[in-house]
Amino acid sequence: MKITFILHILGALLVCLALALLTPLPFAFGEQQDTVSAFTLSSSICLITGLALIKIFKNKKELSVREGFAVVTFGWLTFAIFGALPYVLSGSISSPLDAIFETMSGFTTTGSTIVANIEALPRSILFWRSLTHWLGGMGIIVLSLAILPMLGVGGMQLFQAEVPGPTADRLKPRIQDTAKLLWGVYVIFTALETLLLMAGNMSFYDAICHSFATLATGGFSTRNASIAAYDSAYIDWVITLFMFLAGVNFSLHYYALKGRIGEYFRNEEFRFYLLISCSAVAILMWMNQGTVYDSVVDNLRYSAFQTASILTTTGFATADFELWPVLTQYILLFLMFIGGCAGSTGGGMKVARILLLFKHGTVQLYHLIHPRAIRLVKLGNNPVDQEVMQSILGFFALFMGVFVTASFLMAASGMDLVSGAAAVIATLGNIGPGLGSVGPVDNFAHVSAFGKSVLILCMLLGRLELFTVLVLFLPSFWRK
Amino acid sequence: MKITFILHILGALLVCLALALLTPLPFAFGEQQDTVSAFTLSSSICLITGLALIKIFKNKKELSVREGFAVVTFGWLTFAIFGALPYVLSGSISSPLDAIFETMSGFTTTGSTIVANIEALPRSILFWRSLTHWLGGMGIIVLSLAILPMLGVGGMQLFQAEVPGPTADRLKPRIQDTAKLLWGVYVIFTALETLLLMAGNMSFYDAICHSFATLATGGFSTRNASIAAYDSAYIDWVITLFMFLAGVNFSLHYYALKGRIGEYFRNEEFRFYLLISCSAVAILMWMNQGTVYDSVVDNLRYSAFQTASILTTTGFATADFELWPVLTQYILLFLMFIGGCAGSTGGGMKVARILLLFKHGTVQLYHLIHPRAIRLVKLGNNPVDQEVMQSILGFFALFMGVFVTASFLMAASGMDLVSGAAAVIATLGNIGPGLGSVGPVDNFAHVSAFGKSVLILCMLLGRLELFTVLVLFLPSFWRK
Repeated sequence: MKITFILHILGALLVCLALALLTPLPFAFGEQQDTVSAFTLSSSICLITGLALIKIFKNKKELSVREGFAVVTFGWLTFAIFGALPYVLSGSISSPLDAIFETMSGFTTTGSTIVANIEALPRSILFWRSLTHWLGGMGIIVLSLAILPMLGVGGMQLFQAEVPGPTADRLKPRIQDTAKLLWGVYVIFTALETLLLMAGNMSFYDAICHSFATLATGGFSTRNASIAAYDSAYIDWVITLFMFLAGVNFSLHYYALKGRIGEYFRNEEFRFYLLISCSAVAILMWMNQGTVYDSVVDNLRYSAFQTASILTTTGFATADFELWPVLTQYILLFLMFIGGCAGSTGGGMKVARILLLFKHGTVQLYHLIHPRAIRLVKLGNNPVDQEVMQSILGFFALFMGVFVTASFLMAASGMDLVSGAAAVIATLGNIGPGLGSVGPVDNFAHVSAFGKSVLILCMLLGRLELFTVLVLFLPSFWRK
Repeated sequence: MKITFILHILGALLVCLALALLTPLPFAFGEQQDTVSAFTLSSSICLITGLALIKIFKNKKELSVREGFAVVTFGWLTFAIFGALPYVLSGSISSPLDAIFETMSGFTTTGSTIVANIEALPRSILFWRSLTHWLGGMGIIVLSLAILPMLGVGGMQLFQAEVPGPTADRLKPRIQDTAKLLWGVYVIFTALETLLLMAGNMSFYDAICHSFATLATGGFSTRNASIAAYDSAYIDWVITLFMFLAGVNFSLHYYALKGRIGEYFRNEEFRFYLLISCSAVAILMWMNQGTVYDSVVDNLRYSAFQTASILTTTGFATADFELWPVLTQYILLFLMFIGGCAGSTGGGMKVARILLLFKHGTVQLYHLIHPRAIRLVKLGNNPVDQEVMQSILGFFALFMGVFVTASFLMAASGMDLVSGAAAVIATLGNIGPGLGSVGPVDNFAHVSAFGKSVLILCMLLGRLELFTVLVLFLPSFWRK
């Protein structure tokens, strides 16, 4: 592995970040805090560092598998650190650790925040905050549909995007083609949601910020009360729809835009995702009817919104579900573990993995009474390779292992059991809000510095499907 | 599958139970409640039903795999129902559901109780209560070292007892030989603990009851305050030692008694079990020193006892660990999931499975960077078969699935999140006490009838390694 080559690529990424850091400028002019200098200075630091890295370290034609892992993990880390500059330089978030927490939460499309009074921040800073979501979402789509399948991480090879393009198994051209096509879908959906929100009397600024956060299943809002601030059934439903769409494999959207709408229903993961969504809404409505909401229309609106928000791991809120019956919180907690579809911007363990775990269990039972029968686990019509199944089972075990270890560390940092565990799943699943002291109407500011560091690592681990990050901890990874 | 043959075997089991029901009689004479009639009547009912089943339904020479599953599950269920008779007939526990809960808790060596004032019960009834543990423990040893490995449940084939005997793969002779040898070990250990406890001034009655509960890793005591009632460091240490031994694979004890003590340390699961025990004691001592205990000697005594009690899933108490620092409860909760060694009377997921999960994760990571390297998961010096590994991974996923589903049902029955989840792991892991409202100084009496039924099923599921019970729910199990 050539570390110098990785630094070269990180340099290129920093140049991209430098450009992105200029986009909030239109909102920065005339603001009370000197955000113009904050953004131009941040951009300059990224540009100079980036160009220096590109110049000093040499390029190479092909990326090895190990270099791939290093680029992905260190790429996200670099973005979280350099992307935090505007918060610190503008004085919006004075603690560097807090600023990195907020930026990592942005780029991993988590949506956990340490900001108590969001509306007190300058508009340009909030735009940047939402933009980190959107850029992170772009990264995730390519990562999960083109890069991780090639690296063979956690069974993701099942979800390699079958978009047209050269079939050569060289990493670079394939990634670029996939990226272009799927980003097109992503941009179209973002534009569409922005327009629909503006039609609901949202300002362009609010509309685009919330569209960024929706399509990325991020959850940062520009308002303290999140989406509840607009108190509009129309806006709630537009966002519910787009959260649901953002939780779907983007390859399917690509086919749909090409006119092949039927691909949605031919996809077994999508069908299961739809089933989970509808069942969860039905159960929540049943429990909330008469206890929290008297009107069925309101009940549907709030139950559907919260289901979509948690299942897709967006984390927007229109209701404080901690005031709902205890059992509804259990359902929501369960949804947090599931997450969106593979190849979406959603986090969690992914619908397909849960589906395959369930199928694996059934096949295991079947084999006990028919030891000689051959019955394979299938996804759609395709039998799932033994090795892929082992990856998926390993992913599940590892996910639970990381969850338990991190929850223990949160308890060690002084949090109570429920809040600590909820904070871990909220970050590891890239959801945003948790339960208890990190619930939907609270924030993460009160967590200790040690706790915040653990949660930052959780966001990164969850977003990069665990293996991508953990592999760097193997001594043999670094050996020649 | 011949259902009539299964009924024949259940008849034979009931005749054994009828005999066991006569053993508390020596303690029953002269008691205030008419326990003599209760036991003789219970025994007669079992004998008559048993003989009738044997007479009516025909015997067969060989047991098929499916019949094996049915016998195991329905055998335990039959014992739990018929073994509850003395409680109800003597009026000690008036509700039949409560009595079945207590008996299932006994025969599955769980130790969860619905009895608030234990000392108010007649001595003969308490003897029966402890005896259900001991009989359950005998069943488990044979089940886990001879029956389940042959049925291929949850990777248990790894732990098939290698005790001498005919190597023919017929179920019956092999089970009988294994049973005789391992029960010998079990009886010797029980006698030894009884003598050692009597040397510490415990009465014969108390000593044998507690030995029954220790060797079975059950946890029923004859005293309200459990082992704390004796307030003796000597007794604490004797019980700590025997709890630790009961959590070890009984095949290893068999070798040790034959003079091959070295087998303990040649066994990788035992080494890992020892490592977990020592680490847990060290961490608990570190947290409790100065906060709960000032003396190191006391700290060691109480930390070691509670660790052994929870890890081996016995559930005796000498301290209310809910008053200990929050973090220690997290450690204990973690130990609850692990449980004892395979082939011991302990519950939980089993040390070997946790060890193999961990190894599987490492190998998966290794394969990501060395895709062409061949590196197998090993236990000791033996590579673990792919299929066995899949069984173990499947077991883990299923265990978590059952845990989540049952916790949800407990929340639905009106319990708070923590107590509900703790009640599930306490029963599913066959531990006994949980946390919150079912903690070490509380009991399960207040749980709703629905909740108790769920927990009864959890005890059975956990004790029979999940698959054995769940397989009966497959429609194809019942088809010709």
